[in-house]
Amino acid sequence: MKKLFGYWRSSSSYRVRIALNLKGVEVEHVAVNLKTGAHHSEEYAKMNVQQSVPTLELENTTCLTQSLAILDYLEEAFPTPALLPEDPVLRAKIRSAAQIIAADISPIQNLRVLKHVRAQYGQDEEGISSWVRHFITEGFTSLELIAQSSKTRYLFTDVAGYFECCLIPQIYNANRFKVDMAQFPRLEAMNRAALDLPAFQKAIPEYQHDAPA
Amino acid sequence: MKKLFGYWRSSSSYRVRIALNLKGVEVEHVAVNLKTGAHHSEEYAKMNVQQSVPTLELENTTCLTQSLAILDYLEEAFPTPALLPEDPVLRAKIRSAAQIIAADISPIQNLRVLKHVRAQYGQDEEGISSWVRHFITEGFTSLELIAQSSKTRYLFTDVAGYFECCLIPQIYNANRFKVDMAQFPRLEAMNRAALDLPAFQKAIPEYQHDAPA
Repeated sequence: MKKLFGYWRSSSSYRVRIALNLKGVEVEHVAVNLKTGAHHSEEYAKMNVQQSVPTLELENTTCLTQSLAILDYLEEAFPTPALLPEDPVLRAKIRSAAQIIAADISPIQNLRVLKHVRAQYGQDEEGISSWVRHFITEGFTSLELIAQSSKTRYLFTDVAGYFECCLIPQIYNANRFKVDMAQFPRLEAMNRAALDLPAFQKAIPEYQHDAPA
Repeated sequence: MKKLFGYWRSSSSYRVRIALNLKGVEVEHVAVNLKTGAHHSEEYAKMNVQQSVPTLELENTTCLTQSLAILDYLEEAFPTPALLPEDPVLRAKIRSAAQIIAADISPIQNLRVLKHVRAQYGQDEEGISSWVRHFITEGFTSLELIAQSSKTRYLFTDVAGYFECCLIPQIYNANRFKVDMAQFPRLEAMNRAALDLPAFQKAIPEYQHDAPA
């Protein structure tokens, strides 16, 4: 069986959990405790040179990394149900919105970046939270404009997929950092709709076996 | 004809220029001067809500944004020559390496992030360069390990494509910030090989019409 190495609260792990659930692909979930530095173990670094989560280990022990590359892999290896519509322009628009989260919001609040901000610029917890909120708000402001232009239930489609795999974890994270989501009503509506679906519910951080009781 | 809105020195614009050249897709190049803030004009913000480059405007005026989403669009709309091999696992490995650049290196040194570091933490030019070098070096350290595991001319393939569209601009940028590339011999070898190809040469920042004379 495939194994997903992840961490309950990591938003990139959360993205892949949703995609696996949407596709109905079963995996064994292996917890990598980012708090105790388990991602820096010699064994794990062999699977994932960036020493980050998630890693999807295939049956033949090949390891795939980077959440969006894993989403594209799942889409190609398990085409049905599809995460993306067929039209290349719609696909590009959805992928672009997903990249706003996966490239322009999420990495900037990655632990390794926050650690650097803390160490280099002597920031305390409030300074860090303010950094995180700034970049989530900036990215969500762009995404809300895009979402407002979409007349479908989810982004440019009525079926939750590729983009929502990224959006719902990012909103979870925004709530954690107390970003005021009332500024982003269309994103919030997509969030509520997606969280009604079992594939999204099962992937919620608090329901993972490595979440604190 | 399609139009590519970009900036000569922007590495995400540079990625798309290479891909267009590899595919033989002709576009009109429209310069968006990031130095004078042309990306913040009302007109441009309608095309690209993030007010960033690049934007690919199609014949019907649909605008596509985010460089990797544009690369995937080009791959789907103009399949030959391919930017990615056929095997889903190889595709995932190449996409993952591209994401290390496009998500974990490049956005962290984006102008909007550097501006924030400068304003919030009072960093001068040397402070900013040191921030940039830190994240390029960290990302390239992972990529060099991946590249060392690849026995082909380029990353997991003998044909320069998706990953090299990201790598060559990022090395250009690393040189600008005086990162010591001697630490990354495999990446540097891929860079030299790609820069022998006309598609990569034509895309070099200094050869663009908006580059300073």
